[in-house]
Amino acid sequence: MFKKLERTKVFRDPIYGYIEVDLELISKLIDSKEVQRLRRIRQLSGVGMVFQTAEHSRFCHALGTYQMARLVLLKVEGIKENLDEYEQVLFLCTSLLHDIGHGPYSHAFENVLDVSHEEMSARIITYKDSDIYKILVEEKINPFDISSIIRKEGKYRLIEQLISSQLDVDRLDYLSRDAYFTGALYGNIDRLRLLRSLIIKDQKVLVRASGLHSVESYLMARYHMYFQVYYHPVARAYELLLESIYNRIKDLVANNIKINANLEDFLAILKDSNNIKSYIEIDDNYVFGFIKQLIKSEDEILNKFANAIENRHLFKYIELNKDINLDLIKPYLNKKYYYYESSVSAVAYLTTLGKDNINIYLDNGKIIPIEEYSSVINALAVSSYKEVKRIYYFEG
Amino acid sequence: MFKKLERTKVFRDPIYGYIEVDLELISKLIDSKEVQRLRRIRQLSGVGMVFQTAEHSRFCHALGTYQMARLVLLKVEGIKENLDEYEQVLFLCTSLLHDIGHGPYSHAFENVLDVSHEEMSARIITYKDSDIYKILVEEKINPFDISSIIRKEGKYRLIEQLISSQLDVDRLDYLSRDAYFTGALYGNIDRLRLLRSLIIKDQKVLVRASGLHSVESYLMARYHMYFQVYYHPVARAYELLLESIYNRIKDLVANNIKINANLEDFLAILKDSNNIKSYIEIDDNYVFGFIKQLIKSEDEILNKFANAIENRHLFKYIELNKDINLDLIKPYLNKKYYYYESSVSAVAYLTTLGKDNINIYLDNGKIIPIEEYSSVINALAVSSYKEVKRIYYFEG
Amino acid sequence: MFKKLERTKVFRDPIYGYIEVDLELISKLIDSKEVQRLRRIRQLSGVGMVFQTAEHSRFCHALGTYQMARLVLLKVEGIKENLDEYEQVLFLCTSLLHDIGHGPYSHAFENVLDVSHEEMSARIITYKDSDIYKILVEEKINPFDISSIIRKEGKYRLIEQLISSQLDVDRLDYLSRDAYFTGALYGNIDRLRLLRSLIIKDQKVLVRASGLHSVESYLMARYHMYFQVYYHPVARAYELLLESIYNRIKDLVANNIKINANLEDFLAILKDSNNIKSYIEIDDNYVFGFIKQLIKSEDEILNKFANAIENRHLFKYIELNKDINLDLIKPYLNKKYYYYESSVSAVAYLTTLGKDNINIYLDNGKIIPIEEYSSVINALAVSSYKEVKRIYYFEG
Amino acid sequence: MFKKLERTKVFRDPIYGYIEVDLELISKLIDSKEVQRLRRIRQLSGVGMVFQTAEHSRFCHALGTYQMARLVLLKVEGIKENLDEYEQVLFLCTSLLHDIGHGPYSHAFENVLDVSHEEMSARIITYKDSDIYKILVEEKINPFDISSIIRKEGKYRLIEQLISSQLDVDRLDYLSRDAYFTGALYGNIDRLRLLRSLIIKDQKVLVRASGLHSVESYLMARYHMYFQVYYHPVARAYELLLESIYNRIKDLVANNIKINANLEDFLAILKDSNNIKSYIEIDDNYVFGFIKQLIKSEDEILNKFANAIENRHLFKYIELNKDINLDLIKPYLNKKYYYYESSVSAVAYLTTLGKDNINIYLDNGKIIPIEEYSSVINALAVSSYKEVKRIYYFEG
Repeated sequence: MFKKLERTKVFRDPIYGYIEVDLELISKLIDSKEVQRLRRIRQLSGVGMVFQTAEHSRFCHALGTYQMARLVLLKVEGIKENLDEYEQVLFLCTSLLHDIGHGPYSHAFENVLDVSHEEMSARIITYKDSDIYKILVEEKINPFDISSIIRKEGKYRLIEQLISSQLDVDRLDYLSRDAYFTGALYGNIDRLRLLRSLIIKDQKVLVRASGLHSVESYLMARYHMYFQVYYHPVARAYELLLESIYNRIKDLVANNIKINANLEDFLAILKDSNNIKSYIEIDDNYVFGFIKQLIKSEDEILNKFANAIENRHLFKYIELNKDINLDLIKPYLNKKYYYYESSVSAVAYLTTLGKDNINIYLDNGKIIPIEEYSSVINALAVSSYKEVKRIYYFEG
Repeated sequence: MFKKLERTKVFRDPIYGYIEVDLELISKLIDSKEVQRLRRIRQLSGVGMVFQTAEHSRFCHALGTYQMARLVLLKVEGIKENLDEYEQVLFLCTSLLHDIGHGPYSHAFENVLDVSHEEMSARIITYKDSDIYKILVEEKINPFDISSIIRKEGKYRLIEQLISSQLDVDRLDYLSRDAYFTGALYGNIDRLRLLRSLIIKDQKVLVRASGLHSVESYLMARYHMYFQVYYHPVARAYELLLESIYNRIKDLVANNIKINANLEDFLAILKDSNNIKSYIEIDDNYVFGFIKQLIKSEDEILNKFANAIENRHLFKYIELNKDINLDLIKPYLNKKYYYYESSVSAVAYLTTLGKDNINIYLDNGKIIPIEEYSSVINALAVSSYKEVKRIYYFEG
Repeated sequence: MFKKLERTKVFRDPIYGYIEVDLELISKLIDSKEVQRLRRIRQLSGVGMVFQTAEHSRFCHALGTYQMARLVLLKVEGIKENLDEYEQVLFLCTSLLHDIGHGPYSHAFENVLDVSHEEMSARIITYKDSDIYKILVEEKINPFDISSIIRKEGKYRLIEQLISSQLDVDRLDYLSRDAYFTGALYGNIDRLRLLRSLIIKDQKVLVRASGLHSVESYLMARYHMYFQVYYHPVARAYELLLESIYNRIKDLVANNIKINANLEDFLAILKDSNNIKSYIEIDDNYVFGFIKQLIKSEDEILNKFANAIENRHLFKYIELNKDINLDLIKPYLNKKYYYYESSVSAVAYLTTLGKDNINIYLDNGKIIPIEEYSSVINALAVSSYKEVKRIYYFEG
Repeated sequence: MFKKLERTKVFRDPIYGYIEVDLELISKLIDSKEVQRLRRIRQLSGVGMVFQTAEHSRFCHALGTYQMARLVLLKVEGIKENLDEYEQVLFLCTSLLHDIGHGPYSHAFENVLDVSHEEMSARIITYKDSDIYKILVEEKINPFDISSIIRKEGKYRLIEQLISSQLDVDRLDYLSRDAYFTGALYGNIDRLRLLRSLIIKDQKVLVRASGLHSVESYLMARYHMYFQVYYHPVARAYELLLESIYNRIKDLVANNIKINANLEDFLAILKDSNNIKSYIEIDDNYVFGFIKQLIKSEDEILNKFANAIENRHLFKYIELNKDINLDLIKPYLNKKYYYYESSVSAVAYLTTLGKDNINIYLDNGKIIPIEEYSSVINALAVSSYKEVKRIYYFEG
């Protein structure tokens, strides 16, 4: 039996009205150093350069994902029969902690570190000196159960689906949230309708046939959010400035050239991505703090890109699938730090993800893949695939 | 030059904040008997039996469509170059008046009268004794120009497209509005983004390539609103009660059997649908007024269906495309008044409507059909077609 | 133990997302003839003449009040300790049924009948032939307990407060709802914050000191909704047309003059307001049904006012507290049917309502009247009293 | 004549839908280094520690204030007659630039610098090396006209009122915006209604009598936002950590003790607040960048408070107007860095601000102070004054 707080704690939230915390364990996790760190990491990285109001942090998404998990436990038919008390709390904890491993401006960061943020999440949660680890152990939740879910090891199949599949608490929160904070209306999905459409049977998340339309609508919303928000070329054009700085630092370090800025923890994780102690120190403030110093760097490259960040002098880009004139970018072609090729793609629904697929629960009890039930989704799965290739180059 | 009001008149509206009227002509039209009549005709007929908050009138949709037309004139690139002042005002008037010919619970009504509401709109506007006709003539707008647009005679091609095509001011208003009043979230389209995506060239409404996603999203919203709201079987199950009453009245009249209720105007238009004077008298109040009287009718059929309306005793229904047991409905099969077959269908996008199709304006100035530009829309056009056949029967 | 439905029933609602019904008793009550009748009675009567989108019915407010009561049971501290199971269900039933006695365009109607709608609610609920009475008895709820609460007889003091005081589930629903459907933003109160501020102690509804601001804000919202929406002079100018018709009918009946329209039930309740059977037949459709007939009445007065309703030819009005020129209205002064004096007043908070007052629960456990704790409310109680006197006259 | 952009530029914004820029001058100002810097300064400083979603920047408020000014020019009666073209553009520029002088976590910052942010705004705008100055001069706007408005020198009285009074474009934007991003509902003011209530006469902003309620409602919203959001004690408890760090730095510098962190620009402005070049370098990133370094500082005080920021170890506080036990704080009393007294106060309406007061324009053309016209506002002006004194102390 997990200990309840004397009085339910609430966090005001524009998406849910209130986020409610009634377990002491959850309350302690929220106050942990590692969860608090998410306050200092922007949810949408460079997207704020296009949608100027999208400055919300990963912290509020962590709380929101937890709240979605709470709603799943309260509203979805069959959930209580399929998860015992330990598993219910495990689900809540995982929803809160699933993004704990994100670094600042994650895309650029992952490219340089070469470790996924999911893997970093798992490592932090099982790192014995982290607040999280200590709290979990003290409150009788095995941290390795959470990392197992994040790593999708199959031990808790139902929770894995609920946390990460093509229809999960993570997406249900972030689509709504990112739509709210950008002002883009596409992501305005009908969360309550979706929740009512779900049913849990034999450890599987299923969608009732009557809820088909709400899933079709959700998939389209997700698809449009990808191209209109998450993949916006200007966001990438900004993040590449960071990537060039990281790459330059790597090269200077490799050549034993000293950089005049506070980079200790960053250099530590470049050397060893298992250095969780240093990893946790690194957040948006940390990165923009050393970039502030690099503005006056003696290294011309660092100096240039640090100033570019400050003054929003972004990479330029052209799309490759048009009849473009490559002469334009000739001087930048393949020039280190100044040139990147990038490709983004999305499809409204992927039929090949096996256990992450969406299945329909028919009135007669039969279960079939959604693409067999919905000709719309079948069509989208085939034809909505869209890939955009871009060349980014930096002038100056 | 059309006369302006001394001070802009406003109508509070939850969709636009305010609806603004600055022309005297528009103000007079709004005050006309025929436009005021729309206050007494529900926009969504029987849908209110499912979505209990959807009680809004056609009057507020008429104002809303006018406001969308205003926004088109204010915001869409190229519109002023393609419409002269007379045409701009013509467009505003037509947007306000396009639904003037609707009767109460239109579907059942049209079935019985066998005249489309568009045709009735055209007739009312050109009916010399209508307030509308007199106001228009007085203010130097030719009523026959409006009826020509409504009848799509091709004289004002651009206005016809703006008023009625697959992307028009009518739909842009009603999808948002019906979503708001039902509480269904699907219809929450991004009107402002769509407006910014439009461009008028050579009397044609085009969509910029960059606005593709907003159109895809709008088409899906429309599609879902059809099946989730407009085609909801319970709405039809209610409207059929009216249809049975109408049919019974028709039969009794044909047999010269007197009905003990105030039906004068209704009988008049059954005899002659060109009787505009009587037509205008008929609204929701009129119909529910005589149904109140029929509750005590001596005719058993009228009595039964009138009471059914009062007590929400609806038609039952089954879907034909399931492995259904027709034994269930055997006693009702083809039984007059008690049995109806119904079929509804929709497709996200229809490629075969010629001038009502949506075309994309590419950056290089080329114009192509949207389904050629968007593989998503192409797929939806082919595969989103969905037809639902139902049998409705009345027990009791 | 009250029987639960097999699957929770939901009603889509723009205010709460969903209204959830899990008790069979509530489901049956909603389907009763008397609750269904509320679908045909507009919540805001003549206000729809000013705010054209405000066409919502008393039915959706009844559901909404029930949902607020549900939320109170789920969220308010101390509620479960203060209400046993029977009382909890009693509270839910009363919230659903509290407005059951409203007639069409209630103000005009009450003036003519001279019985309050609360009293009519109590009578209907305890009327042995009503569906409601039968359902309640069958499901082991004493109808007289509900009428006792509505009549505020003091038997269930806590429920009485929750249903009707200066801060109750009725107001919490209708302020939000009426704001939503009019588009007026004043009523946009913070329901969730208010619920969290409440605490039940010794059968009393109290507000925590920390929730003071949300109550101040709610009281101002209520105050502004009164003058901006509920008391809008145009609404009254419309309702008076009905009142004149009612008065004329009364007079003709008193003089034994036959009226050529279906008025049976209306005449029945004019004679005896205890005639519940007739009362239940009367709704908006009934009234507008006979008004449709009166358009052609031979009585000049009825004819005139019926046509005025149809064509929105409203009473004119002037405010008395200005330096007005009474010459203007001389021809109408005190002229029966054509002239009314009207006075509306409101105060943000009334300190003299005894058990309906709002009390603050201090951190130290002390309880004090809100006006002692908040100087703002104290000031408003004294000085926000506002009375507007108007003269209404009918030209023509 | 000011040059228009070829195509209107838009910024998506959740408050207005779109913010539209059609003047080249405005577009250039937005791209200036000094306006872009506002992206890196949070609008609500420490409030994000309570309302975790309130992470929006001053940049989006600057754009929003500009958009409000645009709406004033489009919608307010009499504005065009009272401002010539130069003044209209001056108004737009000033609205965009009015907050340009804010530093990071402004309250703490101003306390240490002892210069108001308004004064800093004026200095930056008239600093010859700023991008802003150059752009303005090039586009024929005199920067000193803008600084004159910000300093309220009386040269442009009408613009001064519109930019900063008790009802101005600044407040109209930030109340809505801060409500949106915190999720607090109090600030949800009716901007459109307010705009329609305004009228400009003889260079004065007046409110029509009919708009009284919307102003009362706005004043209450503002009042509640103060105590519920802006003055939230936790926000201050966080900002004081910064203040202690600043104070400690000041003291160390005074004693010539070297601090091991990149503080050059900060020390420069401590020495001379006229050093605009350094001032502009300082933003949230700058401050949190050096705080990251101070985490490992050898100075015990800096070390302690820097770590407190990182781990959200906030000042504790008690309210003085309760029967408090001062023993609790005895060890901290007046202890430098560890102890602060703080007092916040607000009143719903201040009658003594002279030209910043709100005046009512009566139907008969007379102009009177709002508190004479509204007994509610008169009462609030007298009795809503509320002061909260708190003691903040840092344990550890």
